[in-house]
Amino acid sequence: MDTKVLSMKTNKETFAIIGGDMRCYYLANALRNDGYNVKLCGFDKLTDSCEIAEALDSDILVLPVIPFENGKQISSPFTDGNINLDGCAEKLSGKLIFTGKKENFLREFPLISSQNVKSYSDNEEFSVKNAVPTAEGAIEEAMKHSDSTISGSKILVCGYGRIGKVLSEMLRGMGADVTISARKKSDLAWIELNGFKGIVTGEFHDISHYSIIFNTVPFLVFNKEILGRISKDALIIDLASKPGGVDFDEAKARGIRTVHALSLPGKTAPRSAGEIIESTILGILEEDDG
Amino acid sequence: MDTKVLSMKTNKETFAIIGGDMRCYYLANALRNDGYNVKLCGFDKLTDSCEIAEALDSDILVLPVIPFENGKQISSPFTDGNINLDGCAEKLSGKLIFTGKKENFLREFPLISSQNVKSYSDNEEFSVKNAVPTAEGAIEEAMKHSDSTISGSKILVCGYGRIGKVLSEMLRGMGADVTISARKKSDLAWIELNGFKGIVTGEFHDISHYSIIFNTVPFLVFNKEILGRISKDALIIDLASKPGGVDFDEAKARGIRTVHALSLPGKTAPRSAGEIIESTILGILEEDDG
Amino acid sequence: MDTKVLSMKTNKETFAIIGGDMRCYYLANALRNDGYNVKLCGFDKLTDSCEIAEALDSDILVLPVIPFENGKQISSPFTDGNINLDGCAEKLSGKLIFTGKKENFLREFPLISSQNVKSYSDNEEFSVKNAVPTAEGAIEEAMKHSDSTISGSKILVCGYGRIGKVLSEMLRGMGADVTISARKKSDLAWIELNGFKGIVTGEFHDISHYSIIFNTVPFLVFNKEILGRISKDALIIDLASKPGGVDFDEAKARGIRTVHALSLPGKTAPRSAGEIIESTILGILEEDDG
Amino acid sequence: MDTKVLSMKTNKETFAIIGGDMRCYYLANALRNDGYNVKLCGFDKLTDSCEIAEALDSDILVLPVIPFENGKQISSPFTDGNINLDGCAEKLSGKLIFTGKKENFLREFPLISSQNVKSYSDNEEFSVKNAVPTAEGAIEEAMKHSDSTISGSKILVCGYGRIGKVLSEMLRGMGADVTISARKKSDLAWIELNGFKGIVTGEFHDISHYSIIFNTVPFLVFNKEILGRISKDALIIDLASKPGGVDFDEAKARGIRTVHALSLPGKTAPRSAGEIIESTILGILEEDDG
Repeated sequence: MDTKVLSMKTNKETFAIIGGDMRCYYLANALRNDGYNVKLCGFDKLTDSCEIAEALDSDILVLPVIPFENGKQISSPFTDGNINLDGCAEKLSGKLIFTGKKENFLREFPLISSQNVKSYSDNEEFSVKNAVPTAEGAIEEAMKHSDSTISGSKILVCGYGRIGKVLSEMLRGMGADVTISARKKSDLAWIELNGFKGIVTGEFHDISHYSIIFNTVPFLVFNKEILGRISKDALIIDLASKPGGVDFDEAKARGIRTVHALSLPGKTAPRSAGEIIESTILGILEEDDG
Repeated sequence: MDTKVLSMKTNKETFAIIGGDMRCYYLANALRNDGYNVKLCGFDKLTDSCEIAEALDSDILVLPVIPFENGKQISSPFTDGNINLDGCAEKLSGKLIFTGKKENFLREFPLISSQNVKSYSDNEEFSVKNAVPTAEGAIEEAMKHSDSTISGSKILVCGYGRIGKVLSEMLRGMGADVTISARKKSDLAWIELNGFKGIVTGEFHDISHYSIIFNTVPFLVFNKEILGRISKDALIIDLASKPGGVDFDEAKARGIRTVHALSLPGKTAPRSAGEIIESTILGILEEDDG
Repeated sequence: MDTKVLSMKTNKETFAIIGGDMRCYYLANALRNDGYNVKLCGFDKLTDSCEIAEALDSDILVLPVIPFENGKQISSPFTDGNINLDGCAEKLSGKLIFTGKKENFLREFPLISSQNVKSYSDNEEFSVKNAVPTAEGAIEEAMKHSDSTISGSKILVCGYGRIGKVLSEMLRGMGADVTISARKKSDLAWIELNGFKGIVTGEFHDISHYSIIFNTVPFLVFNKEILGRISKDALIIDLASKPGGVDFDEAKARGIRTVHALSLPGKTAPRSAGEIIESTILGILEEDDG
Repeated sequence: MDTKVLSMKTNKETFAIIGGDMRCYYLANALRNDGYNVKLCGFDKLTDSCEIAEALDSDILVLPVIPFENGKQISSPFTDGNINLDGCAEKLSGKLIFTGKKENFLREFPLISSQNVKSYSDNEEFSVKNAVPTAEGAIEEAMKHSDSTISGSKILVCGYGRIGKVLSEMLRGMGADVTISARKKSDLAWIELNGFKGIVTGEFHDISHYSIIFNTVPFLVFNKEILGRISKDALIIDLASKPGGVDFDEAKARGIRTVHALSLPGKTAPRSAGEIIESTILGILEEDDG
């Protein structure tokens, strides 16, 4: 943290965390532990929480990844109240606003300066770090749904992007026999060089050997033909965002267990996920000040 | 598997798996997959299951780790019936009988030849292999009860026996920052040589730094004094058999979360646990024949 | 290898390996082991070797990475003869020619169609795979020049490109305490996520702690000021191509041991390096045919 | 280091390192760095060195692993002089004397109290820690004599004692495909559990597949029959003490490259080896005081 950020603290700039899930709750904790003034709004089921009007007095406002649900209403599962930014355009102007989907925010508030709205999720560092709770959540799902140990299992990880990389290392670290599929030749070279078996995505000749398959590829990789060759005892954990990479109906018809595991960081490790949001936000503030 | 075991198969010797939990069910599956004739008794809630009289016709009988619950009654959660060996002494004589606690069996049947009763759990290979499902079960418990990722967490593993060794490697493989405690100088030398930080069990100067603590030592290591210095946010997973290594009342009074995780292999990975029993039993048969 | 490459074999297309070091010798071996007809030219000190005129009858000609030394003369340390392509332009036309520095070749033979000349070293897969012999060569140099074990040493790897990645993993795999420096935030996120300590290249506050430093960055990172803070007992292995990333004169004046380790694959693992060239050439042929 | 050891320092007890190789030189350095008074005797080719008479005034005397060469003469390659303890029995009485082979010392000085002579090499911690420089030295030998990279090579490590364990982990950490042989069932269970392929020592069905073989077993494992099935390109590094585990004459006759690599710590990492002796000696002193 450089002097700019520190000076910000002494200037008593304050954060308001408005709505969101446990990640946002832990984000508030993390900011407080680092010495910032933080107001929470929409968390009265968990802790002290202020009204939206008071929250909007803060200098920096943090909204959930998807800022609005319904018009200008903010998702806030930890209050019975209703948090809505309708009619707040004037109070928002001049504030620094963090959310995930910046474009969704600006659609509702077209007159707010785009420069004042920052996305914490469109950020390489955020995505890289978020791969960790995603991979761990995927492993937790696999453990929950499998009768066997990860150690010693033949596992296929489909895709060698951020999540594929982190997940494969963790699975190997637990003793699994991991094969990774990718399309690019240079990815396949890295896969082998990192000590894994590499195969070409889609060219799944030995697909019946795997007892657990993790998919990270956002295309229909596991189609009828391929599902037809998978072991009945196999478990497929699909991490690709909707509609996912698996023909779920066909899998069900064949009796293959599938889990479409989405939004894992917030579910399985909300504290870590909140700390990742914190470090991303502070990083963006530093750069802006720098 | 050597020719002796193969000849046994062709001689049509049969196994009966009598009572027990999912491990015993998967043990039966594993034996069948390897070509043996297997009768299941006490599993009618799950699958075809025979009467005890028929089961006792088999050459080799396999009972649960703890053979009897109540007199000569066999624990059998997957039947509503009652499996009891009362009055079966004659039918048992001459059979080969596998159980875990051999001495418990012989207490009820003192006239059966001790040589015909084998323990599959008093076996170095069994214990080593069982460390894997135990360690994975411990990690699953930690994931379930923690808001943070394993990766990046400061974790203490107390004890460097079989489970401590396997657990530490897995945790590191997932990206945790692992410290291991032991008492023996040569264990501490191995700990460092294997790339971990080593501390002396009981000399826990920095105990407040750890967010997850796994105990494998079957003594009261985590007493009042030490619990008093543990972080309130910490999670303790105790793997030591009853009464365990933690003063649970004191931990509760201080608001420290504890999990006393016992019998993990059967709970979290019964298929793997059953396969380990199978390979142990076949190993013992091989040696006897050899 | 697909059917195109196989058909090529049955068509009796032949390779000539003309000049070069041990890598080229092992390249010839590897091609022969895979069933190709191969002529060697310029290796008479080692084995049977043909005249240049005969070599030029082959369909595919392979020259060293740097094709010419002196006009059209080919570096060929394993013959006392002189291999020169002067006056061979006509014989070369229509041939498929592999070398490393394609532009050097075309400078001497401007009338040869650029499409017929392929570089095996301007290739992502080649570069990725070559990181392995480079990293191992660097470790061998460190072992040779150090009185301490790699295991337990505090080591800095400067740069997180291909070689930095492979080298760091190997050093950690041997038990070293590895810190990696990089400039990009996302690289630093990956470094931490992969379980290493990450620092910003140039911001070397604790530089005096490292006993071995590997540099992979092709800029003057280790300047007077930084060398002034390095331990006198440290060893610097510079892997960056000339002029390297170290002020060697200053290091010498200060009594810091430095090794400028270049062209490691050919020196320390020529067989592996030759096999990498083979797989790169066959990959290029496959793609051309595909 | 406990208060006893510290008090020893303030009492100005002094060490004399008498003779020995570079390990002993670095042992002296390490002791000085930890604040002890140290005299060197027999190192005048390298540094300031005192006469034997002066050395014998010290409280604690450290001799090489094998204390005497020839009667009471001490091996001292770093002096042209001759260090001999003939006639020194009186001066030695009451001193604390460290060497490796305590029994050799006592054979020459039968009247010295056995309690005053300590072996630093008959010590579990010493042996465990020494496995590291031995394993690294073995890898350095393999690199020096092989044309291929360790990474990607099929390697057999014969024996799963201290050196086998450390060596296997390092080789895997460098990317090798490692198989380990052992005899005991529980060792084989650990080998698999640690993620290696395990085979029974002597039952080397696929011995022709390995390109590098490390032997740590002090029996003739690699006999005529087995050597007859090893690849001509293979390299055997024998780490077992003389006569080793390889029929070297037969290997030579068959053109198989062998290296009998002995006393590696002192040769390849004398500084680390010296530090291991230091920590062993200080550990013994602590225990004695404790």
